[in-house]
Amino acid sequence: MSTILKPLIFEKETLSFLDQRLLPLEEEYMVAKNPEDCFIAIRDMVVRGAPLIGFVGIWGMAMFAKNNPKATIEQFVRCAEYLKSARPTAVNLAYEVDRCLAMLTDRKHLTEAFELFKDFALGEMNRLHEKNLTMAKIAEADLVKRYGERPLRLMTICNTGVLACGVIGTALGVVSNLHSKKKVQKVFACETRPYLQGLRLTSFEMFKEGIPHDVIVEGAMSYILKNEKIDAIYVGADRIVANGDTANKIGTSTLSIVAKRYGVPFYVVAPISSFDLSKKHGTEIHIEMRPKDEITEIKGVKIAHPEITVRNPSFDVTDHEFITGIICEKGFIDPSIAGEVKRVVES
Amino acid sequence: MSTILKPLIFEKETLSFLDQRLLPLEEEYMVAKNPEDCFIAIRDMVVRGAPLIGFVGIWGMAMFAKNNPKATIEQFVRCAEYLKSARPTAVNLAYEVDRCLAMLTDRKHLTEAFELFKDFALGEMNRLHEKNLTMAKIAEADLVKRYGERPLRLMTICNTGVLACGVIGTALGVVSNLHSKKKVQKVFACETRPYLQGLRLTSFEMFKEGIPHDVIVEGAMSYILKNEKIDAIYVGADRIVANGDTANKIGTSTLSIVAKRYGVPFYVVAPISSFDLSKKHGTEIHIEMRPKDEITEIKGVKIAHPEITVRNPSFDVTDHEFITGIICEKGFIDPSIAGEVKRVVES
Repeated sequence: MSTILKPLIFEKETLSFLDQRLLPLEEEYMVAKNPEDCFIAIRDMVVRGAPLIGFVGIWGMAMFAKNNPKATIEQFVRCAEYLKSARPTAVNLAYEVDRCLAMLTDRKHLTEAFELFKDFALGEMNRLHEKNLTMAKIAEADLVKRYGERPLRLMTICNTGVLACGVIGTALGVVSNLHSKKKVQKVFACETRPYLQGLRLTSFEMFKEGIPHDVIVEGAMSYILKNEKIDAIYVGADRIVANGDTANKIGTSTLSIVAKRYGVPFYVVAPISSFDLSKKHGTEIHIEMRPKDEITEIKGVKIAHPEITVRNPSFDVTDHEFITGIICEKGFIDPSIAGEVKRVVES
Repeated sequence: MSTILKPLIFEKETLSFLDQRLLPLEEEYMVAKNPEDCFIAIRDMVVRGAPLIGFVGIWGMAMFAKNNPKATIEQFVRCAEYLKSARPTAVNLAYEVDRCLAMLTDRKHLTEAFELFKDFALGEMNRLHEKNLTMAKIAEADLVKRYGERPLRLMTICNTGVLACGVIGTALGVVSNLHSKKKVQKVFACETRPYLQGLRLTSFEMFKEGIPHDVIVEGAMSYILKNEKIDAIYVGADRIVANGDTANKIGTSTLSIVAKRYGVPFYVVAPISSFDLSKKHGTEIHIEMRPKDEITEIKGVKIAHPEITVRNPSFDVTDHEFITGIICEKGFIDPSIAGEVKRVVES
């Protein structure tokens, strides 16, 4: 089998979303006919991942325009506020919906709003696809320099593929691009406790695309890196600061340390929008603590005594000295060179 | 609360087992009245852990003797074979049951068999308790040298406590002994995927004993060791070879590598019976691969797509250069000194 999963499908002016809550055991699509459908999809996590949520926000605006050809600017503003309230902390959602509004106030073409928003949604998706493909090709060129054209053994953590990004993805985009060129021998995917994005989503994407893979528990990092001849590790990023320190899903820093012990190159793949140059050092990044039941329950089944206590940080910070390279759409950053992050990001 | 869990209770010539399959959500005891009760408890994993299984095997022989005061030596041999077949790969079970038989053939006191076996079971348990307490005190003396008498922040993986050993345990025995002297500030317990012995059992033991603790996912090792000022890590061992390389639950080697990166001392605690000096180097240890569903299902609930693939090694090998000390009942071994393992074990 070789099918790339499609979390969003545009067809005949209709948007369907893959209901990610049911994955990987069921594949069901929901159709968005109005802003309410989009609001519910975002609020109830039918769609997840910052770019995906942004696209669905734009689509909510487009559906409002289509269903209300005589809407006033005030009505568009109210619709935008409504859509943004579906996930108030999602920066990308607010950003994309506000850009829709800006188009209207700039151009005053209310009657063309549907066409404008639809083209904007598709344009944003294409631009992100181009960015991800650019990053995947930079990673590929670096690998060819290192290993030539032979098939590679790779490793990753969490989900950074099409289900998170809507397009080919960041770290998993690198894998997907290499696989399309028959350059992947095997991928080891960390299951990514507590929320199991690797076991539930990444392995499912790779199964769909026909990429040979094994899921492992995080504890097995040392066993795999010692015994399985891994050529390179690719991970995503939630935030990258000026010295190259990188916040990403809990487990990433652990993986980087074990990788260095065995001499395996470790790469971060993330778009420019993930960089925060206002912070100099990883210690400035705030790490969110997540609820206990993420660890003590799985799919509603209790697996621990109710009175035990847990510590559940959602992210960790990988020190830049454990990162071989950071790949963004503007190029390859060697974080061991002082000032290199800023130089590439601002180029 | 401060109650040490009792996986086995001897009272009035009766043995009761805590049904470990129901832990940590229910605490129920089963009474063993005959060899069949003991056979079922071993076969169905009501009891687990090598020493515990051995004790129950001896008790099966004792119950046979009690219920059959005129039994012949041939009947005792058949009962021994029956009990050993409950878990044919459990070396300790066969060893203990065969020692019962040897007592009979040596002494020819068939009529005293019940008393002999009962005393032997209690004696074995007391001897193991003494060994574990000796190890705990060696660990304590080392900690006092390093940190003085202040309360400590510790870390562990898997379950090495009373539920695995029947008595205070190895690595968790160290923690339990320190706690009894008010020297534990906090313990971080790795949940130990895939089988979650840390989340289900270790945290439950610590909750019962009133030891302040947090369970973490294995991915959080780096975050915790970087941010939580850990003083020492204690782990158990399945096998220790001549150069000090140590096979233990998957995740142990990963933890040792991250510990070294942050300069946290890392100790292995295991009785002499865990050493195998016939092997020189950890590469000679065979690592068992476990079934896929240990990772893809939790308590029978499917959490992954059925067609994905996994790699599930049950153990990993911690390199001796990542071990600060190995503690056995004969003393403290510094594995960085060549020949030290053999010297202490054979002393």
